[in-house]
Amino acid sequence: MGSTFGHLFRITTFGESHGGGVGVTIDGCPPRLEISAEEIQAELDRRRPGQSKITTPRKETDTCEIVSGVFEGKTLGTPIAIFVPNKDARSQDYGEMKQKYRPSHADATYDAKYGIRNWQGGGRSSARETIGRVAAGAVAKKILWQVARVEIVGYVKRIKDLEGIVDPNTVTIEQVENNIVRCPDAECAERMIAVIEQARRDKDSLGGVVECVARNLPKGLGEPVFDKLEADLAKGVMSLPASKGFEIGSGFGGTLLTGSEHNDEFYTSETGGEVRTVTNRSGGVQGGISNGENLTLRSPFKPTSTIGKQQRTVTSTGEETTLAAKGRHDPCVLPRAVPMVEAMVAIVLCDHLLRHHSQCQLPMTNLDPVSQSELRTRN
Amino acid sequence: MGSTFGHLFRITTFGESHGGGVGVTIDGCPPRLEISAEEIQAELDRRRPGQSKITTPRKETDTCEIVSGVFEGKTLGTPIAIFVPNKDARSQDYGEMKQKYRPSHADATYDAKYGIRNWQGGGRSSARETIGRVAAGAVAKKILWQVARVEIVGYVKRIKDLEGIVDPNTVTIEQVENNIVRCPDAECAERMIAVIEQARRDKDSLGGVVECVARNLPKGLGEPVFDKLEADLAKGVMSLPASKGFEIGSGFGGTLLTGSEHNDEFYTSETGGEVRTVTNRSGGVQGGISNGENLTLRSPFKPTSTIGKQQRTVTSTGEETTLAAKGRHDPCVLPRAVPMVEAMVAIVLCDHLLRHHSQCQLPMTNLDPVSQSELRTRN
Amino acid sequence: MGSTFGHLFRITTFGESHGGGVGVTIDGCPPRLEISAEEIQAELDRRRPGQSKITTPRKETDTCEIVSGVFEGKTLGTPIAIFVPNKDARSQDYGEMKQKYRPSHADATYDAKYGIRNWQGGGRSSARETIGRVAAGAVAKKILWQVARVEIVGYVKRIKDLEGIVDPNTVTIEQVENNIVRCPDAECAERMIAVIEQARRDKDSLGGVVECVARNLPKGLGEPVFDKLEADLAKGVMSLPASKGFEIGSGFGGTLLTGSEHNDEFYTSETGGEVRTVTNRSGGVQGGISNGENLTLRSPFKPTSTIGKQQRTVTSTGEETTLAAKGRHDPCVLPRAVPMVEAMVAIVLCDHLLRHHSQCQLPMTNLDPVSQSELRTRN
Amino acid sequence: MGSTFGHLFRITTFGESHGGGVGVTIDGCPPRLEISAEEIQAELDRRRPGQSKITTPRKETDTCEIVSGVFEGKTLGTPIAIFVPNKDARSQDYGEMKQKYRPSHADATYDAKYGIRNWQGGGRSSARETIGRVAAGAVAKKILWQVARVEIVGYVKRIKDLEGIVDPNTVTIEQVENNIVRCPDAECAERMIAVIEQARRDKDSLGGVVECVARNLPKGLGEPVFDKLEADLAKGVMSLPASKGFEIGSGFGGTLLTGSEHNDEFYTSETGGEVRTVTNRSGGVQGGISNGENLTLRSPFKPTSTIGKQQRTVTSTGEETTLAAKGRHDPCVLPRAVPMVEAMVAIVLCDHLLRHHSQCQLPMTNLDPVSQSELRTRN
Repeated sequence: MGSTFGHLFRITTFGESHGGGVGVTIDGCPPRLEISAEEIQAELDRRRPGQSKITTPRKETDTCEIVSGVFEGKTLGTPIAIFVPNKDARSQDYGEMKQKYRPSHADATYDAKYGIRNWQGGGRSSARETIGRVAAGAVAKKILWQVARVEIVGYVKRIKDLEGIVDPNTVTIEQVENNIVRCPDAECAERMIAVIEQARRDKDSLGGVVECVARNLPKGLGEPVFDKLEADLAKGVMSLPASKGFEIGSGFGGTLLTGSEHNDEFYTSETGGEVRTVTNRSGGVQGGISNGENLTLRSPFKPTSTIGKQQRTVTSTGEETTLAAKGRHDPCVLPRAVPMVEAMVAIVLCDHLLRHHSQCQLPMTNLDPVSQSELRTRN
Repeated sequence: MGSTFGHLFRITTFGESHGGGVGVTIDGCPPRLEISAEEIQAELDRRRPGQSKITTPRKETDTCEIVSGVFEGKTLGTPIAIFVPNKDARSQDYGEMKQKYRPSHADATYDAKYGIRNWQGGGRSSARETIGRVAAGAVAKKILWQVARVEIVGYVKRIKDLEGIVDPNTVTIEQVENNIVRCPDAECAERMIAVIEQARRDKDSLGGVVECVARNLPKGLGEPVFDKLEADLAKGVMSLPASKGFEIGSGFGGTLLTGSEHNDEFYTSETGGEVRTVTNRSGGVQGGISNGENLTLRSPFKPTSTIGKQQRTVTSTGEETTLAAKGRHDPCVLPRAVPMVEAMVAIVLCDHLLRHHSQCQLPMTNLDPVSQSELRTRN
Repeated sequence: MGSTFGHLFRITTFGESHGGGVGVTIDGCPPRLEISAEEIQAELDRRRPGQSKITTPRKETDTCEIVSGVFEGKTLGTPIAIFVPNKDARSQDYGEMKQKYRPSHADATYDAKYGIRNWQGGGRSSARETIGRVAAGAVAKKILWQVARVEIVGYVKRIKDLEGIVDPNTVTIEQVENNIVRCPDAECAERMIAVIEQARRDKDSLGGVVECVARNLPKGLGEPVFDKLEADLAKGVMSLPASKGFEIGSGFGGTLLTGSEHNDEFYTSETGGEVRTVTNRSGGVQGGISNGENLTLRSPFKPTSTIGKQQRTVTSTGEETTLAAKGRHDPCVLPRAVPMVEAMVAIVLCDHLLRHHSQCQLPMTNLDPVSQSELRTRN
Repeated sequence: MGSTFGHLFRITTFGESHGGGVGVTIDGCPPRLEISAEEIQAELDRRRPGQSKITTPRKETDTCEIVSGVFEGKTLGTPIAIFVPNKDARSQDYGEMKQKYRPSHADATYDAKYGIRNWQGGGRSSARETIGRVAAGAVAKKILWQVARVEIVGYVKRIKDLEGIVDPNTVTIEQVENNIVRCPDAECAERMIAVIEQARRDKDSLGGVVECVARNLPKGLGEPVFDKLEADLAKGVMSLPASKGFEIGSGFGGTLLTGSEHNDEFYTSETGGEVRTVTNRSGGVQGGISNGENLTLRSPFKPTSTIGKQQRTVTSTGEETTLAAKGRHDPCVLPRAVPMVEAMVAIVLCDHLLRHHSQCQLPMTNLDPVSQSELRTRN
């Protein structure tokens, strides 16, 4: 269980790092949306390994195929299935993993839970599973843009203790994609790249923080009580591998302020007479519902667990031993985590867009103007 | 939508701060569990207003009634409905709220979403809604204890910049309940109480961080991919009013370490030959699944939005004005947030206990020993 | 589990026949719908016992209270909780039931499933649970009417072998309510009433068939594959106590025709140029999706299990014995089943109305005209 | 939406009749179950076209591939994805369908719902979608057998007015597979085959009734109120293409009896002291919960909509025209519907097996004997 996400825009991923391949089924996508494999591939290319000198050198093209749900370039309203076959992997790299549990990986917990494990490259716990999410995120982004011109921009905010200076209100995707670490602060990005390269040379790894902003978000998204927008975003983002936390708006830091310092006072905008807030410590969400201000969130990703340094561990039969990873791995997942975070944010927002529409924008006079003439007793 | 939570241990809350009352329906509770209204009331008493000088002076007893699902002191397996009637509230306190949006409250977003709002005391967005959660949490705690001796202990870790020193591995509920701020560091608790009292005198408010630990958690709880244990915990906790974030284990701080510093090395315990970890930066969860170590999490709660200081705001018709809250309110929600966090943690863990049991502990030889004799062709 | 129904218009019922009371929480109801306790009560009065000489003589007023979700006569968009307290029942009537399993009742299966049972009057398996459904159905009917002028009319089609002649295309609710058996064929209704009264005198019971029509249904409701409209209707109706089947359109009888006899040929209506069908053997649904023709369905309800005649049975400890019901019971549930079937049909249709709206009627240019001015980058 | 089914044993299908292929993702399957592509293929072969002279002559091998979730012959507990590629179909057969709505098909309703349609061979509404269900059903059957020796046997009970004589308590799968129409009454089967062949010559089609029995079913499966076993079975079976109804046990016919005739009296079995029923008009389910007797159900499948005879219809632009199907189609879907019904019954029963296990068979002393030693406070 646990491979399905979303209530109305609902995705189900499948696949392990080794075996036939990985993919996703998207159910609930509105019909007649123009979408192409190229648009999806563009997002997958931001996620794929081997894209730069600071990611894993594994070469996988992660080429996607739209199996169903799109006809003559448009969505049918029925499930969109997207499939990415696995290439022949060097499973001999993983022989040692058959016996030894990698520290801070899922090997031991999968064995404890299921009593069985695909020990080739992480199996279902591999970050390769996120291919399906990123593909679905590409579709969600397209819907959000078509319906409300929502822009989602994620970026690396911090690597270890190197923190970039970025204004979420103005940052562009071009600035993010301008360097391989995906930090829009170009000067800081260079230093980030340097420490990541050093970590690789040290057979070690680094973590950091991804920040993401959604702009132009309509008011009213999010449901009171359990499905608050920030609660669903937290679940979505923290379901990504290596994420250890989540915060929205002022987050943990906001607790250092008093209420009078923290509250977002209201004003009425000169143009349009909109209710706006002077500050945005709420991060675009009040009472679990979007208020039309920019939605801002952050998530910490731990340093990659797989490292070349020798570590103490045990085998699946309980014998103590040591392990030093020999495979090709990322010295820092943050650059590749950016499109993953964006995808989860897009999926959650798209789901809530549909949910809000279903309940709160149902016309109380008629369902569908097209079928007005239906409204007579049929004899 | 959004008033139901959980997949197998599923709760649905209802009610507004004013009107008939608030409550919860718990579906999926195992049968034959001994539970009494007194046990539930004990948890509600930790949540109720007026319990100490640093909470709101509102006097509400929040007396619960078990409406269904319990018979002769035991659960029936069918839905447990628990109801807490609202007492006559001073709704005249809320007259001003009919017009003016309280900053950083849900008034404006509810109006934007629904085009209608119960302006009496916050309506559905009132923290009074959490009564249903705390009641359900009492049932979940009982199940967790009966099945696996799981202990859940929450406490105030920080108020503004005052941080208590607490060892999650040994802290007891008695230490937590020993003072009114629910910080087990008794010396720090006194200073916390002092700053909260000062904030009240200043007509201001404070925020802070709640920490929570679950001990004796069985291995194997949590589902790969989307329903990772930390993802569901994040959703549950961040669906509480005023929560602005969540972290598990090393959280945001863990990103300052390298992989070799951060990884939890494995060893085999002398007694029992269990696979254990030397450190616990994972916070009891690896790959989304509990590893048997103590589960530790934290959540920041913002300073209470309702303050006596005058603030800039607008009316529901867009006119700019000011507002200074006259009602009775909490200068700091943290002490009352502790049982709420515990409740959400218990509900998530109980849900995952049932989920794990359903899939991974199904005997492959027979469903039910009692009906062994059923296993013949009936003619 | 199993006390929640619906995906977007989602109801959760609670309560047993004895104990505090029964009720329902409705989540997902659109905001600003005018609804009153009186409207709900009117439907409950059609369901309540003691309404005529051919129902159980038990006197219960089943008076409902709206606990939450409605403010100043309008829905808030947040959960509507409706509660009906149980009156003091003569539980001494049920003393024998503590030991003896009533044939074709749920006593034995509840014991087998849960190992515990509320033996007072059926507990959760009592038809009293349907109060919550009928209350929710009243809300669903109101939405369907407000949005699309959908009319739902249920009626007794057959009692044992007495079958009324009714045209589903023209039958009115007034014709149905014109007699106590709820069969719009007035002449047949008299004979039905006579045989039911004879069954009561014989200490026996009768079954029959309820038919229901939904008119003015918009095209497009229902989802391909698993959530076909007829599949969800079948589940909803067959979840009612005593229902043993379901058919839509031509149903079982349609299999006696050939394809060329059975197919519904298309034509274009003179007024409006609508695609219509010459016949309606499909019953208003093709490929799981409403086609704008009248939706017609039928469900058989078995003869009441509780009868005064002596029957062979066993005790909960396995001893063979006999039982003759002494309590007050319905000699035929059909008249009271009519509002229950209507309620489930309304709830399913309302759920699918919202589902269709969410996916297929999302404007691809903007979510909400009101927030057009939001569509600029906020700096 | 609507492509996912089940709560704990949860399947999601994807694919259209034309395009990349069709398939299914099964989430929630217990780990360590032995399953092979051959076992799944055996069920698919019972469903595939071209299997006999009375099915469509289309030649498709429907060869399945297990993409994920199975490792070294055993399930991993993670999602099982099964894929069947589409072969190059003669889409020129479908040119006329681009314009003309086939009577009693889903062409017109899909267009009305989505405003777009894959007109090649039915798209998502094609019976080809059921490949995913039958594949998932093979896995469900294996689980039911491994856990409780449950046997599921479906067969053709009636073709038009030719009804076979079959005892559901003793019928074997060998008797069913003994002839191409899948009616275990061999003499009647011959006549059924003859009328189907005649219908094909007449360019017409026939319908009928499938009956299905599940034997050795444990007591206690099914959830009170909405998820009654018969309600979920009705939904599952009626979600199959061409099904127009459902009944369990005595069904529609049972309403011709009085209560004293219809009730199933209890007795205690000599061997084992089990509570049993003398008759089985309940069809194995009482109060929505299995009682250990054989579960029996029936569903009518309408005569195939696609026929060679000329029929009146309209085009997608509303012009009246005629249509005579030229493609290859089944003169009667019943023989191929048998494995589909069995699959849906198996999927529902497996889901309820897991649901019952999760709630009612949770040991109240410890979750997992293996982790008993975990039950100490960890310091």
